[in-house]
Amino acid sequence: MILEAIGKFAERELLPLNSTGDREGARWDNGSVTTPSGFKQAYERFVQAGWTRLGHPEEHGGQPVPYALKLAGDEILNSANQAWCIYTHLGDGALKTLIRFAERDQVEAIVPKLVSGEWTGTMCLTEPQCGSDLNLLRTRAEPTENGRYRIHGSKMFISSGEHDWTDNIVHLVLARLPDAPPGTRGISLFAVPKRLPGPDGTLGAINNVHCVSIEDKMGLKASATCSMAFDGAEGWMVGPPNRGLNCMFLFVNKSRLGVAVQGVAQAEAAYQDSLAYAHERLAGRAPGSAREPADALVAHADVRRMLLTQRAVAEGGRALAYLCAKWVEIADGEDAAAHEEAEQRLALLTPIAKGVLTELAGEATDLAIQIHGGHGYIKETGVEQRARDIRIARIYEGTTAIQAMDLLGRKVLGPQRAVLGRFIDEIQVLCARAPAAGNERMVQRLQAAAATWRKVTDDIADKARSDAHLVGAIAVDYLMLSGYVTLGYLWAQAAEVSARRLADSGSDAAFYRAKRQTAQFYFDKLLPRMAVHQACIEAGSEAMLNVDDALRLAEA
Amino acid sequence: MILEAIGKFAERELLPLNSTGDREGARWDNGSVTTPSGFKQAYERFVQAGWTRLGHPEEHGGQPVPYALKLAGDEILNSANQAWCIYTHLGDGALKTLIRFAERDQVEAIVPKLVSGEWTGTMCLTEPQCGSDLNLLRTRAEPTENGRYRIHGSKMFISSGEHDWTDNIVHLVLARLPDAPPGTRGISLFAVPKRLPGPDGTLGAINNVHCVSIEDKMGLKASATCSMAFDGAEGWMVGPPNRGLNCMFLFVNKSRLGVAVQGVAQAEAAYQDSLAYAHERLAGRAPGSAREPADALVAHADVRRMLLTQRAVAEGGRALAYLCAKWVEIADGEDAAAHEEAEQRLALLTPIAKGVLTELAGEATDLAIQIHGGHGYIKETGVEQRARDIRIARIYEGTTAIQAMDLLGRKVLGPQRAVLGRFIDEIQVLCARAPAAGNERMVQRLQAAAATWRKVTDDIADKARSDAHLVGAIAVDYLMLSGYVTLGYLWAQAAEVSARRLADSGSDAAFYRAKRQTAQFYFDKLLPRMAVHQACIEAGSEAMLNVDDALRLAEA
Repeated sequence: MILEAIGKFAERELLPLNSTGDREGARWDNGSVTTPSGFKQAYERFVQAGWTRLGHPEEHGGQPVPYALKLAGDEILNSANQAWCIYTHLGDGALKTLIRFAERDQVEAIVPKLVSGEWTGTMCLTEPQCGSDLNLLRTRAEPTENGRYRIHGSKMFISSGEHDWTDNIVHLVLARLPDAPPGTRGISLFAVPKRLPGPDGTLGAINNVHCVSIEDKMGLKASATCSMAFDGAEGWMVGPPNRGLNCMFLFVNKSRLGVAVQGVAQAEAAYQDSLAYAHERLAGRAPGSAREPADALVAHADVRRMLLTQRAVAEGGRALAYLCAKWVEIADGEDAAAHEEAEQRLALLTPIAKGVLTELAGEATDLAIQIHGGHGYIKETGVEQRARDIRIARIYEGTTAIQAMDLLGRKVLGPQRAVLGRFIDEIQVLCARAPAAGNERMVQRLQAAAATWRKVTDDIADKARSDAHLVGAIAVDYLMLSGYVTLGYLWAQAAEVSARRLADSGSDAAFYRAKRQTAQFYFDKLLPRMAVHQACIEAGSEAMLNVDDALRLAEA
Repeated sequence: MILEAIGKFAERELLPLNSTGDREGARWDNGSVTTPSGFKQAYERFVQAGWTRLGHPEEHGGQPVPYALKLAGDEILNSANQAWCIYTHLGDGALKTLIRFAERDQVEAIVPKLVSGEWTGTMCLTEPQCGSDLNLLRTRAEPTENGRYRIHGSKMFISSGEHDWTDNIVHLVLARLPDAPPGTRGISLFAVPKRLPGPDGTLGAINNVHCVSIEDKMGLKASATCSMAFDGAEGWMVGPPNRGLNCMFLFVNKSRLGVAVQGVAQAEAAYQDSLAYAHERLAGRAPGSAREPADALVAHADVRRMLLTQRAVAEGGRALAYLCAKWVEIADGEDAAAHEEAEQRLALLTPIAKGVLTELAGEATDLAIQIHGGHGYIKETGVEQRARDIRIARIYEGTTAIQAMDLLGRKVLGPQRAVLGRFIDEIQVLCARAPAAGNERMVQRLQAAAATWRKVTDDIADKARSDAHLVGAIAVDYLMLSGYVTLGYLWAQAAEVSARRLADSGSDAAFYRAKRQTAQFYFDKLLPRMAVHQACIEAGSEAMLNVDDALRLAEA
């Protein structure tokens, strides 16, 4: 019921604003940001419907739902209008950090406003000289006499740093205390509202934080990406001094999972757009056809290759998001004994989901352009916007390389090695069961893939001891290989469930047949991509060393 | 000397207009098109410098140059401003068709004006219902009493169909005569000037051909992509009736080669931008480094992976373009006995160059965004524009799938099978020679790659006899596999030449060392991609058949 209602809202309110938002863009004028026509009104209706409360704790005004449901709703909203969603996107992870680490009166002052949607929030990490490497962070926080802090510094790429939707915006800001040690162990977290609420809750004057410009971007043009100047803006410290990153990394998995879901959303939408066009547009004749004047595009094998790739990415990606959601629910659930395993599973699966699903969403949206031909290159059909909008997902919340180094360097070659072993065991248990008739080849391929994943991991662990550059040289290949095995596991499960349902009842038969057809495609045409990543891993780091001549700057 | 002069022109006149052109775009108003500021002035200087004459026959005012030089110049110009180049881009292929097939007085009236740059030209193929499948073409041509024809119909996606650069534009239009047979054997070619020149050469009134709108596109915004209405516009027939496609396909190889060079141009520019940024931007520390405050991006193995991929694509692609140019020169040269082989080589290599180099240019420009991180997503750095501008190259002049079907369906499984055999023989001759010290592994890999190409081709020829869907299902994989072997052949040659030069003289040592380093990278990290295409070819068409459930339209 919730998803149907969200679906209607997305279709009626958000989808029509997707291309107009891209055309109009967010506009900056003297510190203010105006969102495109209709954006604010849609948000008002979103707030009225109570959708901002979804997934948040009841005691702060939220409406708890299973995490998979939350992600499913996010997918629907993002497939209709990713740029609009960004404004609503501080997320329950950031709220959990506030609830856990902020002082009680701050929690009471801020959290219910964020849950109700009366205010929105931002995360302020990036600075002009400091993106992926937070060691380089310079923003300063000076303690004041009233126990608060004054923040000084420049932040950039701040999504929704300023807008016209709400009276107030709470910035969660990373900054250094005066006596902080250098590097990432000297970073603290602060909550800095655009307007400080007084003791009675009324909002005071504008704090000394200003949006000095917004970016002109490739996509997500309706989303204001702000450069923020903190000129002694007043705020509270959240959590212990110098532990800002630890507080923040508590919710990094959820933020990254949110981005993975953006990938699923755009892949699904790209598939739906492409499928409709492929049924409507006539060109050429499939072998053996004599249709006049021509067949629809969907009759052609190469178009099917592209459509089925999109579908396999969208549906396989959705399954991976829900697998992560399962572990989120267990990690946040009542069975404390299960928390540790769930956290470890999430730590392993999140970089795979974020890294691989955004890469594949890039491919799926790009294929939509190709399927539409010349019509895909013009704005009218809307598919090129999806490719532009989703492009940033491979960069923000940690680039693909950051996900890859997290997976391989921090997790698999670190304390999470054993949990990978357990995950591969689980895949092999599935493979050891007798497959349904027709699924034998898929299961064989999955078995080989799982064995390869284990072997490749063992080899890397061996070689990395004597080659300090190995992990960096092959991490992205390892990430992609891991992703293809994981998606293979999920597609094999889908094929097994579908075979069972088709044999048992035959209801929803077309749905389950479609699943098996897509699974077959995945194993025939996408899983083989593992081979190239395996070969690149085996080739190691040699080709990236001693390349000074090739990578020397030309003299001016 | 010519290339240096073109380089200066491109750097001073065109490069500064690349981002401003993207921002301003071409503007349509009541049938007129205004190009962005500075575009027309740059063209005037281009014409004054005589660059439009390059590569054209002397008797029509041209300046003949080797075809490789022509392509090298085009690469430089396109790397500075692809959108601007489109206006100049009718090309010598179209001119050759005019010279060969048009009546002598038409040739004299039109060709010198196009060569001098006084006029520009277009190709009018696409119609709203008709893109890749020219069977569906509807535009009509009615004979008039004076031996001319009146053209009626709508054409779309016509590059430079209208602009403010020149007084006249010559449209080469595909249309059907009243008694024409259906399908592609009933299409004739016409030359339709915007303004008909009188007997004394002065231009008359505007012909009945009008630009009714221009497209709002993903990229190449400065290039006017026009919808043209032909409402009885007067023109001449070029070549025999109903043989328009044959006349046009005489120059299709050169048009496609021109697009391949656009890919090389954008890949090279993306590499140069990325390399500069990677030397300048600081983030993180490479293993073993203690540099304060951080290393430059170029120190990181994963960044090197991306940079070397770009470089291998740009330089390998350039070598492939020049290989094609060699065959163009032989095909157009004085040794008539060599024409047939040269035409066949071109027929084989052109779809590989066009299809594979535009695909890889998409990757290279996309990697530039990734290397720049968040800064790659904003317009300021210019790299996202390259990704948008080059995206159409995989679609226009025949999509990647069209190139793939041309290569596999028409050439390799058709009369050009033997020429592929001779090309693979040639690769194997290279492999049979003793490689220079250090090149052994590359040559081994190339040998295996060539053997795979031959085997895969034989297998496809066998299986295609009993599976009508096979060619369509695997053509793009076959194209890409062919491309990786071909680029491997060129990189192995580069490595051999470099080894020899380094041993012989040592002059330009850094240049040749860079070539060997990039070749090594190509063989370690890019050639292995063949494996996935081989696996997809072996998986055949099965996964694309019986997929009606997966590709059914959802009910509204």
